[in-house]
Amino acid sequence: MITGNMLIGAQAVAGAGAPVYGIDPSLGTKIEPAFHGGSQADVERACALAAAAFDMFRDTTLEQRAVFLETVADEIMALGDELVARAIAESGLPRGRIEGERGRTVGQLRLFAQVVREGGWLDARIDPALPNRAPLPRADLRQRHIAIGPVVVFGASNFPLAFSVAGGDTASAFAAGCPVIVKAHSAHPGTSELAGRAIQAAVAKSGLPEGVFSLIFGSGREVGTALVTDPRISAVGFTGSRAGGTALMRAAAGRPVPIPVYAEMSSINPVFLLPSALASRAESIGKAFVGSLTMGAGQFCTNPGLVLAVDGPDLETFIAAAAAALAAAPAQTMLTPGICEAYQSGAARLLEHGAVATIAQGQPQSGPTQGQAALFVTDAASFLANHDLTEEVFGAASLVVRCPDLATMQALAEKLEGQLTATIQFDDADIDAARALLPTLERRVGRILFNGYPTGVEVCHAMVHGGPYPSTSDGRTTSVGTLAIRRFLRPVCYQDVPAALLPAALQDGNPLGLWRRIDGVLGQN
Amino acid sequence: MITGNMLIGAQAVAGAGAPVYGIDPSLGTKIEPAFHGGSQADVERACALAAAAFDMFRDTTLEQRAVFLETVADEIMALGDELVARAIAESGLPRGRIEGERGRTVGQLRLFAQVVREGGWLDARIDPALPNRAPLPRADLRQRHIAIGPVVVFGASNFPLAFSVAGGDTASAFAAGCPVIVKAHSAHPGTSELAGRAIQAAVAKSGLPEGVFSLIFGSGREVGTALVTDPRISAVGFTGSRAGGTALMRAAAGRPVPIPVYAEMSSINPVFLLPSALASRAESIGKAFVGSLTMGAGQFCTNPGLVLAVDGPDLETFIAAAAAALAAAPAQTMLTPGICEAYQSGAARLLEHGAVATIAQGQPQSGPTQGQAALFVTDAASFLANHDLTEEVFGAASLVVRCPDLATMQALAEKLEGQLTATIQFDDADIDAARALLPTLERRVGRILFNGYPTGVEVCHAMVHGGPYPSTSDGRTTSVGTLAIRRFLRPVCYQDVPAALLPAALQDGNPLGLWRRIDGVLGQN
Repeated sequence: MITGNMLIGAQAVAGAGAPVYGIDPSLGTKIEPAFHGGSQADVERACALAAAAFDMFRDTTLEQRAVFLETVADEIMALGDELVARAIAESGLPRGRIEGERGRTVGQLRLFAQVVREGGWLDARIDPALPNRAPLPRADLRQRHIAIGPVVVFGASNFPLAFSVAGGDTASAFAAGCPVIVKAHSAHPGTSELAGRAIQAAVAKSGLPEGVFSLIFGSGREVGTALVTDPRISAVGFTGSRAGGTALMRAAAGRPVPIPVYAEMSSINPVFLLPSALASRAESIGKAFVGSLTMGAGQFCTNPGLVLAVDGPDLETFIAAAAAALAAAPAQTMLTPGICEAYQSGAARLLEHGAVATIAQGQPQSGPTQGQAALFVTDAASFLANHDLTEEVFGAASLVVRCPDLATMQALAEKLEGQLTATIQFDDADIDAARALLPTLERRVGRILFNGYPTGVEVCHAMVHGGPYPSTSDGRTTSVGTLAIRRFLRPVCYQDVPAALLPAALQDGNPLGLWRRIDGVLGQN
Repeated sequence: MITGNMLIGAQAVAGAGAPVYGIDPSLGTKIEPAFHGGSQADVERACALAAAAFDMFRDTTLEQRAVFLETVADEIMALGDELVARAIAESGLPRGRIEGERGRTVGQLRLFAQVVREGGWLDARIDPALPNRAPLPRADLRQRHIAIGPVVVFGASNFPLAFSVAGGDTASAFAAGCPVIVKAHSAHPGTSELAGRAIQAAVAKSGLPEGVFSLIFGSGREVGTALVTDPRISAVGFTGSRAGGTALMRAAAGRPVPIPVYAEMSSINPVFLLPSALASRAESIGKAFVGSLTMGAGQFCTNPGLVLAVDGPDLETFIAAAAAALAAAPAQTMLTPGICEAYQSGAARLLEHGAVATIAQGQPQSGPTQGQAALFVTDAASFLANHDLTEEVFGAASLVVRCPDLATMQALAEKLEGQLTATIQFDDADIDAARALLPTLERRVGRILFNGYPTGVEVCHAMVHGGPYPSTSDGRTTSVGTLAIRRFLRPVCYQDVPAALLPAALQDGNPLGLWRRIDGVLGQN
């Protein structure tokens, strides 16, 4: 069933560019078939179809769009074990993880279907005319949000389902009413084709114009750059490296008409161990921390890559417990040879760093493409003096920073770059220290956690998977959770528009039963 | 009372840079005193104060912040006629206009006070913990929006009160909880100092940290660039030229940490005259159109600079009526000699353009700094072939495009750059033509008006004064109306944060009485 073809609208199209193969990282072997990259003409055709589909797609009713999202979910489930098996083979991730990720992917699509139906994201507002107001009458003014335009989504390597072809960026863009063109990640081309075919089938079943979705392959940056710089594209969603994300930001800002880029890039997710928590639970924290650090070979954007604590015997207990747990952690297959190599060189840089000592390493590699976990330690002064210690090492490596006191810990927090998350390990007696940290963390991160671990990002209404630059390109948004729909919307105001031409969301009598603001007052009328 | 000093926090500071003087454009004379530009050290101090004030200011209660906004409004009114007289002298605008603009300015501040109190902009969300959920429990997740950080606002030339020191950008940034540093517009330095002193007094009366507000002068781009590139600045608000706005966009995108720029730049605000409306009302439309075109010497972002209609006798009637009205229109004093010069050279370019004919000119200049209104005409093919005809001429000049048919009018609409507004003159029989235009206009503009004129922007909940690039740098926002607060906010998620440390907006029992989403369901609990 996997053909190696791209999906341009309703067509399956064989690329003519350089071939990409899936690699089974656990074996180090190529998986057939070849996926040939797209050409400028393929990009052109996908963009033309998306632009042609846009007005019709964004004008679908809320119910039609919700059913479409649910149909995508159904079609993904209908792929059955072929999708799971292919994702396992291409990613090296275990079956339980991939099955869970599939559940998350379809759950996400269904959650966005609910969001579309509820319609709060339209932010409908009506300021009725005041014809007798002095000195000047007021016109009838109504506002809703509409879809921003066709969106390009770059699949992420580390979630071949939930952050890829039919992942969160695609689901939220569809929910907003935007056609989507996905640039498939070369690490899981077969998984991408399968998910793409599910979306293509859902588009057809839903009677939508074919340009609502296309899937294009391509190694290197040529296809991606062509997509991002096409004048018909209105926004970009991306999850990946800082180098990749900032390149897209530059390309988008350099267009004759600049467009927003929502790039989720890099984060070291600091964990603050407060003194009382450390005094009472250093050992269990150390063990649980290593669990979070090594989960999925550490290949999460929210992986805890930095630990800050006041130096002393309780920190030694934490370090000892973490070292013991880590030393027992088996090496794990990483997503791709390239990611594994980057991890190994990042870990080697810390191993050999003059200002860093090695606390422990995990079990050594027993097969190809495996990453050996590692835990390092430094002191606050060295951390401040060596900017390279703040760089993300994507994988199961983390750095403990010994702080002389709480004030120094606070000062380090203030110096951190923007992060997706910050975690505080806390007991009640730590409340003053935690309260002092909070304003700094609010300015620096998108999500603040207490007594948990940052890995495991819930798809819900209150989630923020975003944060100040460079954790993302745009800290005003999230790429997980229902607020993500807002990235692909813009407001339009209708002044004295005749009733017959008003969109349903803004009509008198509220035919859609929306929450709306009438003269600023929220209600369902 | 006007000293020529800058306001850095609570201090009045004499600049040491090149002097700027207010110019009375109706006389062409300098107004004392001199306003000396700020230095890098002044910028540094204003930014340091703003950063120091940020946590305290954003942590004020909704009521405290609302009262602060109302106090700014009161202090502006307390300036009395000195403010009005100075604004008239520096802008050449008539008293009625300046008094109306003052009313708009204080009304805007008071409207944002209401918005702050209501708190809907916090978008508070709670997804309660599900400890027994299988296979994994859900943490307690809560989300609110917080202020983005210190904001730099560039005053606009054409609204010395409502889009300047205490204008919409400042009001919405304060409402969000952001300290503001205003770079005063050199066209009205005395008006800026007075408005700045009103804000400074309100900061002191409200017991807020002094860094909540600073006002800096400076000719040229040095001070502005220093402000926008300071690492403590988190966002920029600007209203002005496309050249100025795009320069700020480049500066902001080139920072080590890029920040959002909300620049409202240029728009020619197309007016579509549909056939039936033209058949029944060509004369009255022509007259009213010239009223909108020449209002305030045409110095509005929403000035109707383009008219599209199907050629024929009804269009001739419109042209004749507009020509008669325009020929009688007196030349009007423009804001500054520079703006007047730019207008004259823009109008001269059209006067001499090979593809353009002159329909009428207004009364000639009778004093310094006056702009003579002008109306031009071209045909659709020439309009398409000459990109320079789509460029804004800031002032009372407009261009009529004769279209051979409705399809051509629609095709021209599709080719237009992003605009703040589009206007449709419409009678019931035009409904099909209007319906066909609407999807295009929704994609191209921020506000669509029927049977009105785009000048006159209501400050209310449903207003959008924004639009796709290049009308603004960011079509996802508005710079007028209550939605403008969203530009200066970002979401933060709180996971398992102890009750004692939760912000009031997210506490159990809803102590602020906010509209919140609990598990996605909107309610006041």
